[in-house]
Amino acid sequence: MLINCAAYQGGRKLADISVPDISDYLAKPECFVWVALKEPDAAEMAAMKEEFGLHELAIEDVMNGNQRPKIEEYGDTLFAVLHTIELDDDGEIITGQVNVFAGPNFVLSVRHRAQQGFRDVRARCERETELMKHGAGFVLYALMDSVVDRYMPAIEALGNEIEELEDRIFQKHSPAASRGIIEDLYSLKRRLVILQHHVAPLVESVGKLIGGRIPAIVDGMQAYYRDVYDHLVRVSNAIEARREMVVTAVQVNLGMISLAESEVTKRLGSFAALFAVPTMIAGIYGMNFQNIPELHFRYGYPLCLAAMATIDVVLFVLFRRANWL
Amino acid sequence: MLINCAAYQGGRKLADISVPDISDYLAKPECFVWVALKEPDAAEMAAMKEEFGLHELAIEDVMNGNQRPKIEEYGDTLFAVLHTIELDDDGEIITGQVNVFAGPNFVLSVRHRAQQGFRDVRARCERETELMKHGAGFVLYALMDSVVDRYMPAIEALGNEIEELEDRIFQKHSPAASRGIIEDLYSLKRRLVILQHHVAPLVESVGKLIGGRIPAIVDGMQAYYRDVYDHLVRVSNAIEARREMVVTAVQVNLGMISLAESEVTKRLGSFAALFAVPTMIAGIYGMNFQNIPELHFRYGYPLCLAAMATIDVVLFVLFRRANWL
Amino acid sequence: MLINCAAYQGGRKLADISVPDISDYLAKPECFVWVALKEPDAAEMAAMKEEFGLHELAIEDVMNGNQRPKIEEYGDTLFAVLHTIELDDDGEIITGQVNVFAGPNFVLSVRHRAQQGFRDVRARCERETELMKHGAGFVLYALMDSVVDRYMPAIEALGNEIEELEDRIFQKHSPAASRGIIEDLYSLKRRLVILQHHVAPLVESVGKLIGGRIPAIVDGMQAYYRDVYDHLVRVSNAIEARREMVVTAVQVNLGMISLAESEVTKRLGSFAALFAVPTMIAGIYGMNFQNIPELHFRYGYPLCLAAMATIDVVLFVLFRRANWL
Amino acid sequence: MLINCAAYQGGRKLADISVPDISDYLAKPECFVWVALKEPDAAEMAAMKEEFGLHELAIEDVMNGNQRPKIEEYGDTLFAVLHTIELDDDGEIITGQVNVFAGPNFVLSVRHRAQQGFRDVRARCERETELMKHGAGFVLYALMDSVVDRYMPAIEALGNEIEELEDRIFQKHSPAASRGIIEDLYSLKRRLVILQHHVAPLVESVGKLIGGRIPAIVDGMQAYYRDVYDHLVRVSNAIEARREMVVTAVQVNLGMISLAESEVTKRLGSFAALFAVPTMIAGIYGMNFQNIPELHFRYGYPLCLAAMATIDVVLFVLFRRANWL
Amino acid sequence: MLINCAAYQGGRKLADISVPDISDYLAKPECFVWVALKEPDAAEMAAMKEEFGLHELAIEDVMNGNQRPKIEEYGDTLFAVLHTIELDDDGEIITGQVNVFAGPNFVLSVRHRAQQGFRDVRARCERETELMKHGAGFVLYALMDSVVDRYMPAIEALGNEIEELEDRIFQKHSPAASRGIIEDLYSLKRRLVILQHHVAPLVESVGKLIGGRIPAIVDGMQAYYRDVYDHLVRVSNAIEARREMVVTAVQVNLGMISLAESEVTKRLGSFAALFAVPTMIAGIYGMNFQNIPELHFRYGYPLCLAAMATIDVVLFVLFRRANWL
Repeated sequence: MLINCAAYQGGRKLADISVPDISDYLAKPECFVWVALKEPDAAEMAAMKEEFGLHELAIEDVMNGNQRPKIEEYGDTLFAVLHTIELDDDGEIITGQVNVFAGPNFVLSVRHRAQQGFRDVRARCERETELMKHGAGFVLYALMDSVVDRYMPAIEALGNEIEELEDRIFQKHSPAASRGIIEDLYSLKRRLVILQHHVAPLVESVGKLIGGRIPAIVDGMQAYYRDVYDHLVRVSNAIEARREMVVTAVQVNLGMISLAESEVTKRLGSFAALFAVPTMIAGIYGMNFQNIPELHFRYGYPLCLAAMATIDVVLFVLFRRANWL
Repeated sequence: MLINCAAYQGGRKLADISVPDISDYLAKPECFVWVALKEPDAAEMAAMKEEFGLHELAIEDVMNGNQRPKIEEYGDTLFAVLHTIELDDDGEIITGQVNVFAGPNFVLSVRHRAQQGFRDVRARCERETELMKHGAGFVLYALMDSVVDRYMPAIEALGNEIEELEDRIFQKHSPAASRGIIEDLYSLKRRLVILQHHVAPLVESVGKLIGGRIPAIVDGMQAYYRDVYDHLVRVSNAIEARREMVVTAVQVNLGMISLAESEVTKRLGSFAALFAVPTMIAGIYGMNFQNIPELHFRYGYPLCLAAMATIDVVLFVLFRRANWL
Repeated sequence: MLINCAAYQGGRKLADISVPDISDYLAKPECFVWVALKEPDAAEMAAMKEEFGLHELAIEDVMNGNQRPKIEEYGDTLFAVLHTIELDDDGEIITGQVNVFAGPNFVLSVRHRAQQGFRDVRARCERETELMKHGAGFVLYALMDSVVDRYMPAIEALGNEIEELEDRIFQKHSPAASRGIIEDLYSLKRRLVILQHHVAPLVESVGKLIGGRIPAIVDGMQAYYRDVYDHLVRVSNAIEARREMVVTAVQVNLGMISLAESEVTKRLGSFAALFAVPTMIAGIYGMNFQNIPELHFRYGYPLCLAAMATIDVVLFVLFRRANWL
Repeated sequence: MLINCAAYQGGRKLADISVPDISDYLAKPECFVWVALKEPDAAEMAAMKEEFGLHELAIEDVMNGNQRPKIEEYGDTLFAVLHTIELDDDGEIITGQVNVFAGPNFVLSVRHRAQQGFRDVRARCERETELMKHGAGFVLYALMDSVVDRYMPAIEALGNEIEELEDRIFQKHSPAASRGIIEDLYSLKRRLVILQHHVAPLVESVGKLIGGRIPAIVDGMQAYYRDVYDHLVRVSNAIEARREMVVTAVQVNLGMISLAESEVTKRLGSFAALFAVPTMIAGIYGMNFQNIPELHFRYGYPLCLAAMATIDVVLFVLFRRANWL
Repeated sequence: MLINCAAYQGGRKLADISVPDISDYLAKPECFVWVALKEPDAAEMAAMKEEFGLHELAIEDVMNGNQRPKIEEYGDTLFAVLHTIELDDDGEIITGQVNVFAGPNFVLSVRHRAQQGFRDVRARCERETELMKHGAGFVLYALMDSVVDRYMPAIEALGNEIEELEDRIFQKHSPAASRGIIEDLYSLKRRLVILQHHVAPLVESVGKLIGGRIPAIVDGMQAYYRDVYDHLVRVSNAIEARREMVVTAVQVNLGMISLAESEVTKRLGSFAALFAVPTMIAGIYGMNFQNIPELHFRYGYPLCLAAMATIDVVLFVLFRRANWL
């Protein structure tokens, strides 16, 4: 589906144009065409391949729509596969894909399963006419910047989940809650692993745009791409830090479970002792010896009960002091 | 066993030829011979060595049939050892080996223990006459692409196993089931380790075909080999992600076992208390003191039973509320 | 907020100057201007951008005030983002940010949320007139040296926390104390992870100043930057060593918890046995057989009590010897 | 002790020669001397140093006989320290050392504590006269190939030990067996760590012979050294895979122990309940209330026993169903 | 404190000289001065700075006396910071520091907190006049060799500690002993981490002396520095192997604790059963039913006791067989 198709010259928009006119504008000097598609069908992509002379393998990647993030050169055209990352209401990761072809005088962006549009990116580009003179190099940057900017809220949401889990771990809680914590830690780890596998390849790819041999398209825009790179590294480091904390949290939680078990054992043992003592005494005075003087005492029975109660009170106090109850 | 032997010129098949004719066709300009063998005997390999001038060590590797995946240069010939990976019905890994010699004007592929044939690869190559003009560089790519494409279903099957195991971990289950989960996690880890040791060396080898000094054979086919490389990296990352999750799952499962143990302890303790209280009371009224007034009450006995029952009901409710029962 | 603005020539301070005069002094040969700002507003930064010709992206980074540590080149100007690290009274990490622009004939430092000022750095620079002749290269070094020097106390404070925790782990302690230890270990790990993510990127950035292509500004100051680098590596290694010890401490603590649980179980079992023996004996002599000779012994009852006591004493001694009590 | 000393020319053996004649043969064109020593004394090594002009440090390494595997260049002579690895009947690792000096026209091999001789290597070399024309480069390869070939059986033996341990882990077993499993896992880990520290340095050293600047001696033999390298990498990867599985096995075994403990607790609790119920009932009918009607029933006693038995049977069935017994 | 100050020419000692004469000897051709200091004061170091033209930062590092190991170039002078490592009687690590300046015609060594002197190094150097002609390059090597040689005993002592701990882990032992083992494992880990942080940076620094651009001072001595490097790598690998084994030992010990706990639980359960059975039987015959025939049997009581004893013996045998007692 064609979302947008416009020609620019000297940093300014000339006009919205139709697909068949693209080649006319590409022929004009200093002119530059920007096309945005969304989930295109094979025919649309074939048209684009025709207009811009795109490589067959890149087209396949676009149609396949399930690539790892990467930035590749096909001749003088850069082909970037970007992943959009959002969290849904349950904190589950939703990813989309944005493919960008950036040639000497054109940019073609193709969205798949990406909720977020790039209307604001186009608006920004048309506003910054000075930078827009860089053409494709700037548009590609603006698109990447927009995609990467939206990673941070997802990372932060997961960071908040960790903090909330930490609180839950260190509170006293029921086994059911413990079970919930373990499940949540596992789910968090899973999502962080997924996230890193979306972000890490892009860090590497963007790193190649700012060091070593630099593609012509991004030349003169290094500072901007370095900015995106920095942003990506920060995201990646944040994910790593969170992963490491989750690993520790899993271990720590195991310690807490062991501790809780230990306390249960102590409490049960203490209660058992409180019952065992009177039972033993009662057993003794239930013996049938002919000659048990206490049995004939007038207040033998209440004294015996009192003794039982006293011992239990003493034990109770001792257990309390030892923190067993 | 000879599977196939054909000569190509300008991207098109000339004819199926016999082994002795190979050298004739190799002498023709622009001509290119593609031979496929399956579990050849020493004589067949000796003939091939003769026809194509293959290196003795590579022949040894082929006959040995138990090499790690690699791509090596012997003069202007590339020698690739590829592993095929399939899962059998029990999810156990079955590997085969495909050795490919790709010289300036020939390709020789030798299959060992590989269920999958390459009939479809030959068909594809003969269809794409334009690419077929690249000769050995394209055929080698097509073979690798086919081998690597079939890795993904195995990875996905293991991914499904993990998901199924996750569900089982977080369900309440018997110790026997727990034992099963531990065994399955271990088996999964084992297979992922094996898988990575089949895939990782190939990632490295293919990486050398697309960066740095590039062998003449694959020149002009970079974009295609980069595609295979990308695919391999995705497979490798997927394995890594799954391995990491299995490690976490093992730890998490340990936590679940501890938790379950803790719950058993609580339940046992609660039941013990329900028995201990009546036993203690019964003990008291079993004492032989002369003067225990309650014993002479008319409804002493039923009142006593009622007291026991009441206390137990109260305890039961308390334990329930505390989630101990 | 402008903290300071002065011009230097030949290593000596000429005068405190006003912002509008900066360009005059920049024009003078061998002259060099050093400006210090603290949490500047947009207008102040715009003025600086104007005076020194700073890059827009760097300005954005300064205003944003939440960057990872880095050192970047914009043309012949170095832009350094440094993090200050301090621990508050609770041992929690407080970070501030210092941005430094070091151009051929100026230094601009901008502080954010950094408690520590750089009055002492300026004093040192004005004292060491010989080095001050290096201009921006020396001032940047002096600022970095000052920032990095103040990392060490934080690291040492955390080191002391670990040592204190070690003592607590290996002492006998209550479950509540155990819970505290786990929480403290987790908190320590968290802070070390954060710390490393403040320090590690700077190690890498400073490393680039002393090897490979060296920016003109720091040329001739290599030995000094190598000194900062060394300092940073020491800090980074110290953090790593502490992290590794915390990981081990978490595991070791788990072992101590298991051990403590084991001892509780033994003690409870021992006590239970001390009650179980008299109860069993009492039960036997509470049986109603017609013919139990002991019941008719004159001293049957006291002998029975004595037997109970003797057995318990013997058991007690045995348990003590086996370290169960 | 001199094992062998022979001169070769054009790939063919000339004669067994005596040590004093070595220099004569070294002077002849195309001639090449191969000496094998076993645990030589200082005098023998001094003679060799004299004959071949060996470096003092290498001589020290040989006499010391306790070096890590390495390949070093001393001028145009390669000095290789190889470790032989064998398992004794208890699966314990036995290592020996083989030092090889490979100069332009000589090879000197010195064995220490190595059971395996190299008679077969000499035989192979004398058989392959074509390769033998490469002289020292081929002999060094043949020695390395022989040493490395014998690593695999050790690796495989350890692999079998792991598989056998896996079986034992997942069987039901006594604590004594568990203890044995833990000890065996630890011992396996220890031996794998030792093994890797014998193999890994050699991987690195051989890697340097096939990439980058290549020593003159091995020139033209690249394909052969690459073969050794491949073999070493396979061995190293196999060790790594086994180490990783042992780590997982240790964790998994811990889970099995926890599970077994959990089952013991349940079984004990179940048995306790089977005793507690009749005891409680007996207590009740042992009370001395004047008015307990059941006591006067004709079949009170057998009914009571029957009730106890019935309850216990019911409980037993319930416990069985819940897998507690 | 000045320990030694001597001049050498052509590999031979000329004379012990006084500090003021140093400059005279430095001026002589082929002459070379070697000064050894121990914990010098600021004045002494200032004199040395003057005589040899040392860099201020290196002087600061010497006076500070708390640097990480490193080798740095200041112009044509190498500045090495070496750590001496010794274990005291409790196995605790004691480190000292040796700083060495090696210039074209001088060596200055400065010791801090290092018990070991270098008298033997000087003796060796004066003995090996041939090598001593290399001047500073040889002396620096001799000092490093001496420092590194003394690492090995410390490593071996820790290795012995591990072996002793292994024995203790796999013996049956009391919880107190277990506690001791955990403490010792932790302490061992701590010391290995410290050790590695003393050794690892030096490995890296010495590595730079033997590969890539080589400082003039060490030129022609490569083989010797490579020897030191090899030694360091061996030490470093030995530390790594020990660390890995300690990690495994901690885990394994946890398993042993769990196992021991499991055995305690079983033993307690078994004993409880031995008491529970007679108590239950006694309870039954303590019931007050009018009609319990057994009570009137002549040998009812002894038969009952005999039954109790028999059942307990049977249970005892069963428990023994099941390894519960």
